[in-house]
Amino acid sequence: MITINENYLKLKSSYLFSDISKRVNSFKQTHPEREIIRFGIGDVTQPLPKVCIEAFHKATDEMAEAATFHGYDDCGQGYAFLREKIAEWDFQKRGAAITADEIFVSDGAKCDTGNIQELFSNSIKIAIPDPVYPVYVDSNVMAGRTGGNENGRYAGFSYLDSTKENSFVPRPPDERVDLVYLCFPNNPTGATISREQLTEWVEYARKNRALILYDAAYVAFIRDESLPHSIYEIPGASEVAIEFRSYSKTAGFTGTRCAYAVVPNDCVAWDASGTAHSLRSLWTRRHTTKFNGVCYMVQRAAEAIYSDEGQRQVRQLNDYYLANAKLIKTTMTSLGFESFGGVNSPYIWIDTGMDSWKFFDMLLDKAGVVCTPGAGFGRCGEGFVRITAFNSTENVQKGVSRISEAVNRGR
Amino acid sequence: MITINENYLKLKSSYLFSDISKRVNSFKQTHPEREIIRFGIGDVTQPLPKVCIEAFHKATDEMAEAATFHGYDDCGQGYAFLREKIAEWDFQKRGAAITADEIFVSDGAKCDTGNIQELFSNSIKIAIPDPVYPVYVDSNVMAGRTGGNENGRYAGFSYLDSTKENSFVPRPPDERVDLVYLCFPNNPTGATISREQLTEWVEYARKNRALILYDAAYVAFIRDESLPHSIYEIPGASEVAIEFRSYSKTAGFTGTRCAYAVVPNDCVAWDASGTAHSLRSLWTRRHTTKFNGVCYMVQRAAEAIYSDEGQRQVRQLNDYYLANAKLIKTTMTSLGFESFGGVNSPYIWIDTGMDSWKFFDMLLDKAGVVCTPGAGFGRCGEGFVRITAFNSTENVQKGVSRISEAVNRGR
Repeated sequence: MITINENYLKLKSSYLFSDISKRVNSFKQTHPEREIIRFGIGDVTQPLPKVCIEAFHKATDEMAEAATFHGYDDCGQGYAFLREKIAEWDFQKRGAAITADEIFVSDGAKCDTGNIQELFSNSIKIAIPDPVYPVYVDSNVMAGRTGGNENGRYAGFSYLDSTKENSFVPRPPDERVDLVYLCFPNNPTGATISREQLTEWVEYARKNRALILYDAAYVAFIRDESLPHSIYEIPGASEVAIEFRSYSKTAGFTGTRCAYAVVPNDCVAWDASGTAHSLRSLWTRRHTTKFNGVCYMVQRAAEAIYSDEGQRQVRQLNDYYLANAKLIKTTMTSLGFESFGGVNSPYIWIDTGMDSWKFFDMLLDKAGVVCTPGAGFGRCGEGFVRITAFNSTENVQKGVSRISEAVNRGR
Repeated sequence: MITINENYLKLKSSYLFSDISKRVNSFKQTHPEREIIRFGIGDVTQPLPKVCIEAFHKATDEMAEAATFHGYDDCGQGYAFLREKIAEWDFQKRGAAITADEIFVSDGAKCDTGNIQELFSNSIKIAIPDPVYPVYVDSNVMAGRTGGNENGRYAGFSYLDSTKENSFVPRPPDERVDLVYLCFPNNPTGATISREQLTEWVEYARKNRALILYDAAYVAFIRDESLPHSIYEIPGASEVAIEFRSYSKTAGFTGTRCAYAVVPNDCVAWDASGTAHSLRSLWTRRHTTKFNGVCYMVQRAAEAIYSDEGQRQVRQLNDYYLANAKLIKTTMTSLGFESFGGVNSPYIWIDTGMDSWKFFDMLLDKAGVVCTPGAGFGRCGEGFVRITAFNSTENVQKGVSRISEAVNRGR
């Protein structure tokens, strides 16, 4: 008899964004006349940068001729033309000594952050921020690293509370953990981490032989140059950290699909007998066994952002969303809500002063606006909602004006 | 201390095609003047069909305008425009009652066949053909479903010998197994399965509450219309089988990346208490947690093959490779080698009468031709090599002539 992985039964019944999607669809059916504005899922709305479109067309033409056709990406790790540009522009230019052979191109940071846990034993102690991007949690639950869920928390995880008190940047725990998930600029709170705070984490990891999984998917929104863009700007981090990047938000690639993981040559984990193993070798093995590389045209399009003109276009694209973020933040503040993020980040984290799903329903019902209830990101997210800046400015203007009206009407 | 998944240490040191690539690279360094012809890895060489190129350009232009821009693929399961065409053209037209909601679009059959095992418990008994596509084996080893490897076989698997005696189509075993991997037209042997033989497997699965994972990545090469194209042509299969398809070989997408899995609504597996669970629900959960959909342009390009003109172009593309296969097969036969496959399949499986890595080295050294040693696919592959028809006709002509010369010279 074929039996299932019963760890799946521990998961809450569905994925947060599927839940939201269901509520929105049901609202649309009962209110077909209402126009909905989506500030919920963090999905971009603006066209791809021109440099990417041009590269896409050019690469497509190459695929139309046998002489310039591309089959499998040779090593599955991504084309050297892209990995070399990444190493130079995203790391070396910022003083982080990352090389092209340490880059693994993939189809998404969600995939990478979901898959990376396969490399580790099931007995490790994992520190999970709360609130958190649900993929870190669910992928470990599926793998059997937790007990059941009680009151929104899984037995076995060490939760790192991210609250107003610590400005949503948790410090290393007193207890010893083996694997730590960090994400800055943060999803969902929009918080950023300083060089000093990140240094404290790197030192914790080095001292405890722990590993940090550093999700920097939102790095393109950092405008404060004093903030670290990569964990590898911190001395010693390459021995204790894997970093994840994505073009989804950087270059509007949510529907185009390209990302990468950095697994430094120095980075190791141990077997039970205490022998060190290269994580780059293990990830290579995982990558070549269960993955077959990213679309050639997509890799060419990603490469196109690494030029002065490409960087200018990407910055312009992200400035557009940052202006939206500012408008949302200003409006929510003027309505009397305390809000966080929205600077160096496309996410605004709003203290609603009420149950977060109730606020979600109120906003949907009264303003036709979709946000993301903070409770979906963890217990510490209760009371908050996440509003994203990923929309057209026109929609943001309309959305905040509808929110203002709904909130003022309710008073 | 961060500890590793020690199951990785059970794997043979590297992936078959990486091994081959290393030997070829080393040969290239010592013989820089020699031109190498690759009949090894099954990678296509001919341009994408015109309909796909046109669809790609058109979809790229859509991504350049906010009004027609596409972000995340809504449900991550693939766009309805593609899934509906798949259901109609690949299944319903052949009498298999598969619907669009049972299709999950992905970036590769390698990914899907590697990831699907996550849904099952670790205590299941797995039947693995020998020889076999290594991904089925390695993904289960990584998950901890086996013991160590002795003499090329992992403890815990039930191996299905595919030999000359059974024409490389194993029958269901006498013992009871829970999960069965089948691939037809077969990689690496090129064997095809008849309706009667496949019916025997479906009946075995129904009787034993087993599940069949049916890899039909090479279906586009079937020219004998009496052969089943899909396992769902067999009555009752939708309750006991998941099928995998790919555009890699069908439409030359190895570098473009698109595939799909069919997880029928009827298909279930059980928990330890005997309660049935929908595999479609479990796969949806897996898919939405660790995957974020396929590039919009790629999905549009895949859709383009589902028209009379698209089908004509795809057939022409595959006829091209089938003509190569015929030439290789004829040559090897004339040289006195018994060979299999090469009809309804792009793979020719050749009985070398010697150690398969030795034959590999001989062919590389004497003819500058790369093949795949059968031993890399399992113990029963020893003595055979796989030659693929994926090359230009010019290269195939050159390759077989060099092989003829090398073999005749050696006699």
